[in-house]
Amino acid sequence: MRLKVLLVSFLVLLVSACATPRGTGDLGVIIERAAGSVQIVETTTRTRLAQIAGLGDLSHASLVYSRDARYAYVFGRDGGLTKVDLLRGRIDKRIVQAGNAIGGAISQDGRLIAVSNYEPGGVKIFTADTLELLADIPAGSGDSQRRSKVVGLVDAPGECFVFSLYDAGEIWIADMHDPRQPQLRKFTHIGKLPYDGTVTPDGRFYIAGLFGEDGLALLDLWQPDKGVRRVLEGYGRGQEPLPVFKMPHMDYWAQAGGNAYVPAVGRSEVLVIDQKDWKEAGRVAVAGQPVFVVARPDGRQVWVNFAPPHNDTIQVIDTLSLAVIRTLKPGKAVLHMEFTPRGEQVWMSVRDENRVDVYDTGTFERVASLPADKPSGIFFTPRAHRISQ
Amino acid sequence: MRLKVLLVSFLVLLVSACATPRGTGDLGVIIERAAGSVQIVETTTRTRLAQIAGLGDLSHASLVYSRDARYAYVFGRDGGLTKVDLLRGRIDKRIVQAGNAIGGAISQDGRLIAVSNYEPGGVKIFTADTLELLADIPAGSGDSQRRSKVVGLVDAPGECFVFSLYDAGEIWIADMHDPRQPQLRKFTHIGKLPYDGTVTPDGRFYIAGLFGEDGLALLDLWQPDKGVRRVLEGYGRGQEPLPVFKMPHMDYWAQAGGNAYVPAVGRSEVLVIDQKDWKEAGRVAVAGQPVFVVARPDGRQVWVNFAPPHNDTIQVIDTLSLAVIRTLKPGKAVLHMEFTPRGEQVWMSVRDENRVDVYDTGTFERVASLPADKPSGIFFTPRAHRISQ
Repeated sequence: MRLKVLLVSFLVLLVSACATPRGTGDLGVIIERAAGSVQIVETTTRTRLAQIAGLGDLSHASLVYSRDARYAYVFGRDGGLTKVDLLRGRIDKRIVQAGNAIGGAISQDGRLIAVSNYEPGGVKIFTADTLELLADIPAGSGDSQRRSKVVGLVDAPGECFVFSLYDAGEIWIADMHDPRQPQLRKFTHIGKLPYDGTVTPDGRFYIAGLFGEDGLALLDLWQPDKGVRRVLEGYGRGQEPLPVFKMPHMDYWAQAGGNAYVPAVGRSEVLVIDQKDWKEAGRVAVAGQPVFVVARPDGRQVWVNFAPPHNDTIQVIDTLSLAVIRTLKPGKAVLHMEFTPRGEQVWMSVRDENRVDVYDTGTFERVASLPADKPSGIFFTPRAHRISQ
Repeated sequence: MRLKVLLVSFLVLLVSACATPRGTGDLGVIIERAAGSVQIVETTTRTRLAQIAGLGDLSHASLVYSRDARYAYVFGRDGGLTKVDLLRGRIDKRIVQAGNAIGGAISQDGRLIAVSNYEPGGVKIFTADTLELLADIPAGSGDSQRRSKVVGLVDAPGECFVFSLYDAGEIWIADMHDPRQPQLRKFTHIGKLPYDGTVTPDGRFYIAGLFGEDGLALLDLWQPDKGVRRVLEGYGRGQEPLPVFKMPHMDYWAQAGGNAYVPAVGRSEVLVIDQKDWKEAGRVAVAGQPVFVVARPDGRQVWVNFAPPHNDTIQVIDTLSLAVIRTLKPGKAVLHMEFTPRGEQVWMSVRDENRVDVYDTGTFERVASLPADKPSGIFFTPRAHRISQ
């Protein structure tokens, strides 16, 4: 009898541990910043699959995915690096690797995780598998013992990480072919106080925004010998700095039909940039100071959210006519948007309403709404396959 | 005692049915055309996970993936449509839906599978879930009772399928918002004998190759009212048709830095096309008549394979210099290439050597080789997230 009870208990355990197999191509993670938790969702029938707590301070949190789209690496503000298992719905591994951090990247081959730190400044490199520390790049300038805050960390083809040194005004390329001995190439005097950086979706052009002067610093990673040059002098701080309610994010630049669409700093405008020569090709007047400017995956539409006091609004720009074709009012504090990979729907965090809303991008109708605890970033697994997620 | 035996047997069954959970972002399918089988592989450690037989005639076979990247829909030449479960490593469902077929597509929302048929001609629409027939589009021209062979079937944003009628010389757009009642828009007199078609990666421009006359037929799906126009008069059959050893595939056009790289028909050249105006921007002399011209995902390199007698060769074009920077001889009958999604490696079928080889795209060294039975097409799951896979 005791044997039977034991066996039956074992069976029950086994069945519960043995989840139905499922693909990971339609999964996503939503950051719940106040609670320090994340939700795992799926975009096919738009449901929540799991909620996972214990990720620390998730303000300004971001994440990248493993190349098999099973794990998310969540970068917290408090230096926490948490590897989340989407299929088992739990934390696989968590470390606190610095006192203050600002995002990270995964290497082209998926084997390395890099984290960009403020305190102490620098970049740390970990194995994606076990989060073992492989290298620490202190990122001080010249002979200085002072570690610089590191911003705008991205991965690039050729097993590289690229990042900017806020205090030092430099851009560094780290070649990670030997992960314990990164080979560094340093570009100095790129401009004052680079506050963020990004790379074009093809991984070719690295761009740093400058807080201390006008314009952007541009580095062609295909031709690094040409050095860093200044582009878009009308962008950024400007000659007469305007009040900026919230710095626009540089981590995603919308691209469509050879143009990039970027938020103007301190102005109620979206700038259109011709990527052939990095010159301004136009401006679109919008409802407020843009924060995220995101292209629908086919490039036909660009969706924009705004800094306070216009953060209840979304506007949609048609890229053929450069006209604002729709203004939506999803609710209080629309913080982030993420398109399904083929663009038929867009998810958005409406933080102060504790909701994530899903819109049809053809009809502009809301098709679903999911409860969430002060949601901020939304990240879908197809990012796993992009250069610089 | 008998109870124990029963219970233990049950346990063994349960454990074997209960595979370790795994992500599907790094999976792929290799077509073994002669055997009518497929292999399921993974690209992280480059191994074979399963081999599945019974898929019928797989010459010229292609496939698309479900939006969760769990299932592959394999289109066989014999009209077979087979839904393969990558996680369980088995056929989930198989139907024979026509006598002779030539590929298919999956709708933007992932709910519909469309198949392009030769005999009887037309397009059939099935549910992705159960392969239930929803609609049959006979694709006859005008009042004609004759069903046309259908080629160049693609999906496009806005829940559309687009395809060309070989016999009738037409391009049709099928709006699938009501899957049982497709709304058809027909473009007639687009040119003689369209033999294949494709759509740009953003889903905007549909292009049909013409066997019966010179140039290509181009339709801007963002502005269909402008109709079909002829571009690239120097492409295609030409004024004086050359012997063509194998028609180049149109199902993948390489794009890099605003240019498209396409195989010249009957010439040992790759054409470079400026996508702003669809005019020829250059030509690159290569080793033979190109078949597939594929861009590394970052656009820095374009890899080319060739028709017989040069089908033992691969050439790599650098897109900055437009120079051939490497010639490889992988072996007899290199039929197809597929890049890992972030471009660090490329897999290629070497049919007559019964191998699939994997090359590092930085060093051009062969890093792995897998046995395969007369392999042809290679398809990785990140395709699931692309417009027109």
